[in-house]
Amino acid sequence: MNTNRHLLLWFAMMSISAALGGCSNQRSGYAGSSLSSPTQAHAAALASWNDSPAKRSITAFVARVTNPQSPDFVPPAERIAVFDNDGTLWAEQPMYFQFMFAMDRVKALAPNHPEWEEKEPFASLLKGDLKSALAGGEKAMIEIIAATHFGMTTEEFDTVVKDWIGTAKHPKTSKLYTEMVYQPMLELLSHLRENGFKLFIVSGGGIEFMRPWSERVYGIPPEQVIGSSGKTKFEIRDGKPVLVKLPEINFIDDKEGKPVGINQHIGRRPIAAFGNSDGDLAMLQWTAGRAGPNLCVFIHHTDADREWAYDRASPVGKLDKALDEAIRREWTIVSMKDDWAQVFPVRKKDDR
Amino acid sequence: MNTNRHLLLWFAMMSISAALGGCSNQRSGYAGSSLSSPTQAHAAALASWNDSPAKRSITAFVARVTNPQSPDFVPPAERIAVFDNDGTLWAEQPMYFQFMFAMDRVKALAPNHPEWEEKEPFASLLKGDLKSALAGGEKAMIEIIAATHFGMTTEEFDTVVKDWIGTAKHPKTSKLYTEMVYQPMLELLSHLRENGFKLFIVSGGGIEFMRPWSERVYGIPPEQVIGSSGKTKFEIRDGKPVLVKLPEINFIDDKEGKPVGINQHIGRRPIAAFGNSDGDLAMLQWTAGRAGPNLCVFIHHTDADREWAYDRASPVGKLDKALDEAIRREWTIVSMKDDWAQVFPVRKKDDR
Repeated sequence: MNTNRHLLLWFAMMSISAALGGCSNQRSGYAGSSLSSPTQAHAAALASWNDSPAKRSITAFVARVTNPQSPDFVPPAERIAVFDNDGTLWAEQPMYFQFMFAMDRVKALAPNHPEWEEKEPFASLLKGDLKSALAGGEKAMIEIIAATHFGMTTEEFDTVVKDWIGTAKHPKTSKLYTEMVYQPMLELLSHLRENGFKLFIVSGGGIEFMRPWSERVYGIPPEQVIGSSGKTKFEIRDGKPVLVKLPEINFIDDKEGKPVGINQHIGRRPIAAFGNSDGDLAMLQWTAGRAGPNLCVFIHHTDADREWAYDRASPVGKLDKALDEAIRREWTIVSMKDDWAQVFPVRKKDDR
Repeated sequence: MNTNRHLLLWFAMMSISAALGGCSNQRSGYAGSSLSSPTQAHAAALASWNDSPAKRSITAFVARVTNPQSPDFVPPAERIAVFDNDGTLWAEQPMYFQFMFAMDRVKALAPNHPEWEEKEPFASLLKGDLKSALAGGEKAMIEIIAATHFGMTTEEFDTVVKDWIGTAKHPKTSKLYTEMVYQPMLELLSHLRENGFKLFIVSGGGIEFMRPWSERVYGIPPEQVIGSSGKTKFEIRDGKPVLVKLPEINFIDDKEGKPVGINQHIGRRPIAAFGNSDGDLAMLQWTAGRAGPNLCVFIHHTDADREWAYDRASPVGKLDKALDEAIRREWTIVSMKDDWAQVFPVRKKDDR
């Protein structure tokens, strides 16, 4: 019960602050093109990146570690690159997309729970009154997460996530959430893959929430996705083996948990790490501490017109202590406004 | 303390039964060639396998799932194969090799622990009296494991394992432990890799004990090794980030834990699974429960002359309930005596 509570509180606190404080904190709303779709980029030249020092620091690193004549040459097997997800590969405003999923799930499950009409936080949530729903604080959030993420098999959850991610739209942009991935990052993933890197997502988000679509959207297979997780239990149901998702913490892949998760899943240090918040700092420190060449990059949300602008004071994706350390250590800081010619993927002519 | 105790007891019980009961139980000692070394095989035709139904069931499966014209075709991304380690890829008698490592570590660490001269279980162990050392039962084993596996950084442990695995010799065969891998299984790993399979080790043994040598010996990189593990903690020591190995359980990758570990690390069901004991049964059930073609294989230790012969009554690698289920479900059972033309790798002429 203790660890269970820990997991749920962690998720709850991240979500509450996001849900209640997210919008007021952002400096400007999203006003980008709606003509986008998540196309895997094969841009040899990182076409959506402006020719800036940030881009050059990345391409120069890749050139150095892949050149057998360079003293910084790294054998392909050791070319591990890790990426945070929320705010690094896709957007995270006005709150983590996984919380949007949880809220939508409450609505979808409501017909099976007539008692929710009277019972908070569900009653308010179903009326569209998020503020009242979350007035119950931690306890309210715990009930929402527990009702939507646990008690089913892993395969049932996989289906639910796939259905949602294929249809749900962002409240502000009306895009599919997978259309709110960053085009320059898709190009970077391709560039690294073409140069023999093995790419991993290392996210505070739920591992079972990302895996159903990470391969299609990012080209990153489920076995290269690391995230927070609950415990599961092996059972034979009607003669068929299943894994049941229990309401109990397994692992929280955030802050100091990120190097732990990387060691647990990968077993060697990355040579490149990409994040956007204080939650990624330990991951970048772990990467920078490697003997040999390494690349540490923060994505800085500076573009209030095309995306959102936020950093030190944001309840979602707070970048404060990590920004100081990145400046001090001369890590690469990518300004979305200055370094990206384009933010979201442009829909191809023959789409829809 | 509770989970900590759980981990240590689990390891302790496995090791004690092995250490005290292993030799008396085996039907015959090892008497194989000493002219062996762990060479990665590139045997196109599984040369060390006799042309038997067991071999044909494996090659026919590989042919079916890789043939785009077959109704059983499986896309490369889903060709996941999982292998138990102890008793499936390398030998495990007279006791798990990781316990040999723990005992050797006690000897190596003794100079830093003068108090061990008087203190059990270390005093007896250092005199070579294993029986007296283990007379203290669980408590004795817990002290041995704790003294040898925890309290150092992951990178320090990596170095210690590499040193040991490169020099320590098996008490009966006088081979390096990595020379006691199974040649037919090395050939099978190559055959599967050549056919687009991605291979994972899924072992009850320690994940940090296998990773330092799995790539060199099996061609399986650390990120494809799943095993039991302790918790680690991220720390900055003298300005350098490290992960410290804590004496606390993280995960036990045995029995019903194997499907859990597979889901946690891989995120999709294997299409092929190889084991040798009741500890692998849930992993094979999980694989067999996949929608679509699958292959489940048990290695049966039937060769008292070239390796060891043991199954239902062995304290190490007990194969009892799983043998019944394998027979009932017509899974592939590989008899080492009948199906393998060779057991251990033959040392090449130009070696030593």
